[in-house]
Amino acid sequence: MNYSMLIYILGSVLKIEGIFLALPSMVALYYQEKSLGAFLATMAFCLAVGFGCTWKKPDNTVFYSKEGFLAVSLSWVLLSLTGCIPFVVSGDIPSFTDALFETVSGFTTTGASILSDVEALSKSGLFWRSFTHWLGGMGVLVFILAVLPMAGGRHMYLMKAESPGPSVSKLVPRVNQTARILYAIYFVMTMAEIILLLIGGMPLFDAVTLSMGTAGTGGFGIRNDSMGSYTPYMQNVATIFMLLFGVNFNIYYLYLCKKWKQALRSEEVKMYFGIIAAAVLLITYNVRDLFPSILNAFQQAAFQVASIMTSTGYSTTDFGKWPVFSQTILTVLMFIGACAGSTGGGIKVSRVLIMIKNVKKELHTIVHPRARMKIKMDDHMVEEDTLRSVNVFIGCYLLIYAVSMLCISLDDFDFTTNFTAIAALINNIGPGLGEVGPAGNFGGYSIFSKYVMMFDMLVGRLEIFPMMALFLPATWRRR
Amino acid sequence: MNYSMLIYILGSVLKIEGIFLALPSMVALYYQEKSLGAFLATMAFCLAVGFGCTWKKPDNTVFYSKEGFLAVSLSWVLLSLTGCIPFVVSGDIPSFTDALFETVSGFTTTGASILSDVEALSKSGLFWRSFTHWLGGMGVLVFILAVLPMAGGRHMYLMKAESPGPSVSKLVPRVNQTARILYAIYFVMTMAEIILLLIGGMPLFDAVTLSMGTAGTGGFGIRNDSMGSYTPYMQNVATIFMLLFGVNFNIYYLYLCKKWKQALRSEEVKMYFGIIAAAVLLITYNVRDLFPSILNAFQQAAFQVASIMTSTGYSTTDFGKWPVFSQTILTVLMFIGACAGSTGGGIKVSRVLIMIKNVKKELHTIVHPRARMKIKMDDHMVEEDTLRSVNVFIGCYLLIYAVSMLCISLDDFDFTTNFTAIAALINNIGPGLGEVGPAGNFGGYSIFSKYVMMFDMLVGRLEIFPMMALFLPATWRRR
Repeated sequence: MNYSMLIYILGSVLKIEGIFLALPSMVALYYQEKSLGAFLATMAFCLAVGFGCTWKKPDNTVFYSKEGFLAVSLSWVLLSLTGCIPFVVSGDIPSFTDALFETVSGFTTTGASILSDVEALSKSGLFWRSFTHWLGGMGVLVFILAVLPMAGGRHMYLMKAESPGPSVSKLVPRVNQTARILYAIYFVMTMAEIILLLIGGMPLFDAVTLSMGTAGTGGFGIRNDSMGSYTPYMQNVATIFMLLFGVNFNIYYLYLCKKWKQALRSEEVKMYFGIIAAAVLLITYNVRDLFPSILNAFQQAAFQVASIMTSTGYSTTDFGKWPVFSQTILTVLMFIGACAGSTGGGIKVSRVLIMIKNVKKELHTIVHPRARMKIKMDDHMVEEDTLRSVNVFIGCYLLIYAVSMLCISLDDFDFTTNFTAIAALINNIGPGLGEVGPAGNFGGYSIFSKYVMMFDMLVGRLEIFPMMALFLPATWRRR
Repeated sequence: MNYSMLIYILGSVLKIEGIFLALPSMVALYYQEKSLGAFLATMAFCLAVGFGCTWKKPDNTVFYSKEGFLAVSLSWVLLSLTGCIPFVVSGDIPSFTDALFETVSGFTTTGASILSDVEALSKSGLFWRSFTHWLGGMGVLVFILAVLPMAGGRHMYLMKAESPGPSVSKLVPRVNQTARILYAIYFVMTMAEIILLLIGGMPLFDAVTLSMGTAGTGGFGIRNDSMGSYTPYMQNVATIFMLLFGVNFNIYYLYLCKKWKQALRSEEVKMYFGIIAAAVLLITYNVRDLFPSILNAFQQAAFQVASIMTSTGYSTTDFGKWPVFSQTILTVLMFIGACAGSTGGGIKVSRVLIMIKNVKKELHTIVHPRARMKIKMDDHMVEEDTLRSVNVFIGCYLLIYAVSMLCISLDDFDFTTNFTAIAALINNIGPGLGEVGPAGNFGGYSIFSKYVMMFDMLVGRLEIFPMMALFLPATWRRR
């Protein structure tokens, strides 16, 4: 383990966080909130420690897969630990555990909250909460790669460990360039949503915070009814952008490069929209009697499907009151999740697709035992390594799921609440069903459960392996 | 597809079923029940069609993997379709769907019932219900292999398709001999339980039916409170035998051959008993206040853990009223299930073990990317094929689970009921939680849901692939 390099990267993360803390500070200044001091103090702390750690570039920049995993998981833990300070100091969320939960939920783009009254928060607090979604969505290390010149060609390991999906491809040969392109697309799309919401008459503060929450597929709202009280136009804009942020960003790059054919061929994106279409139609039919018109039912179904499938978690209505069939569809979507290479969570459409293809292949070998089929995706062979990593992902996912369920069940909430709570957290969605449904929150769980839940959120956002690497003794050994 | 061979095997299944129908007929005769006619008629039908189909041995006995899978799945469907006739004709269960559900539940050793009052059934009906557990536990084709001389050396395919576990090993070189040994152990153990229950003062009828239900890890009781009203001694005997029937039968053979060391080394059996011990202790502690003494709590916890983990499904108390932590432990055990090569259901301990080892291995390669570790079990290398089949099993299992949940959620039962209903069916356990808990039954679901559930039970018992092969067009093509 190259510890000096690790400290250098963690220092960079703190620097970036310190710089970004200027944004909520400005919001606090504008609204003349007393939380200004809390943000400035945290900013000073992050910058001081950050610059201290990065004062001298390490001599040894050798950096392998395990350093990449560890750097990413520790960065996210550090980011959350420092990011929650303003909430505690300002008194917005006095309990440290709760503040940390809220911050982890923010950075991991989960959007699960322990607050029963978000409107009581300061404006700057709300802004910071939503901003953590935006930064966490595309990733803080991807951001560092985009803006900081770093020596050595091994940064792919950082990108790989932070980006979602079974296989991460560079858009262009250089990692820094890839990171820059991703963030540029991300920024432009966020701005587009803000502008469209402003056109619809949404106040600037709401438009900015909600767009950041959409972009990161986070889901923290700034009103107690999430997005329930906004106009249908605003809800529809959110629906469309949630869906767009759930698409693999590689596709947008292909469009930018005018590689239309290649972009249209993506099996993952086709399946993604196919599942969404099917889910929206089934739910619209199922809930048609709950709304004044079928169009209204369709609009609500589309919003909710987009919100859950992309793991955003905004809500316009309490779908905990919908028929069980609709609730079950939404629960299944929770697990499938968005596309790989998007800002969304869940198991990811491409993993589900690979799993289905694998099952088909193996069934085929029952009938033709000697045939050795290969799995193809987008006309490319799926490599054995990818297939293996998908299988291990699923295995690990199930094990963590079961253990988490056992841990939080000590709090004696009902089975549905516990099951969907873990589903909503490990898939980075936000609301579940029962007590943690759109009308509830996670505040009632014990401190122990909350730490288990934070772990699950990080496991979900970083796709298991970086967090697991933390617990392997071999990771920590010096070479 | 070798159709003449397929018909020959299906005919043999009907013959065996016809012969076994003599047993409930004798019970009906003894108790002078009017259902005697129904059993005799079904018996005559099975024997007539069975002998008709097996009159002439097919010239072409070529038999491959796909014929094996298809023969097994069709045999089980046929067995259930004919096995339910006595219930319908005698009026014990007038509805055909319900009678079929009960019979599928019997043969697949699930033990889920649509009856709210089992005590209203005739004695011969109760006997036949329990006998289906006994036959289904070890398998009807394994039985045929044990008793009928069949030409050709390809019968391993039949055994493989019917026996549970990721890899099936022959105890001795000849398949027929292996089948005979398995049934001999099975028979002796069943007799041992009957005798021990008789010694405790249980009436003969109860001892025989309950022992058959234990042996097959089925779980149909003959009283409305399952095993709640029997003495602690009888419950403890059942606990011990449930646990014993959940052990891989290969182990017993090793003991018979005095290969103590090899028998004691089995990692699967160690893990099986390890999980049981942990679960019993945790639940005992968790429910200690619900019972008059800690010993009483321990006894009840042990019974319930043994019943669920081995997928038997007897109950002595309504664990739906236990704390959620205990319920969650039981739910996790539902999925793990018993050992491979036992009569129990679930994913199987060995698959879970292979999955955990695989996860460990892959985590290790993060730290040492160039190391190529192999997975070992009982000091043998786990073959790539086994590992692949475990992964595909899990994948297929999850897909079927999700689709089944969606189908039955149309009936608008609550989420916990639906989720644990499918868990209880696909893992061949019997009772779930909520409406389908120990105090409830499956009678309230729609006809459509009941057929989905029957499919799930068969999928669970035959471990997915034989049932899936039914739906592959390529299976049905002539060579």
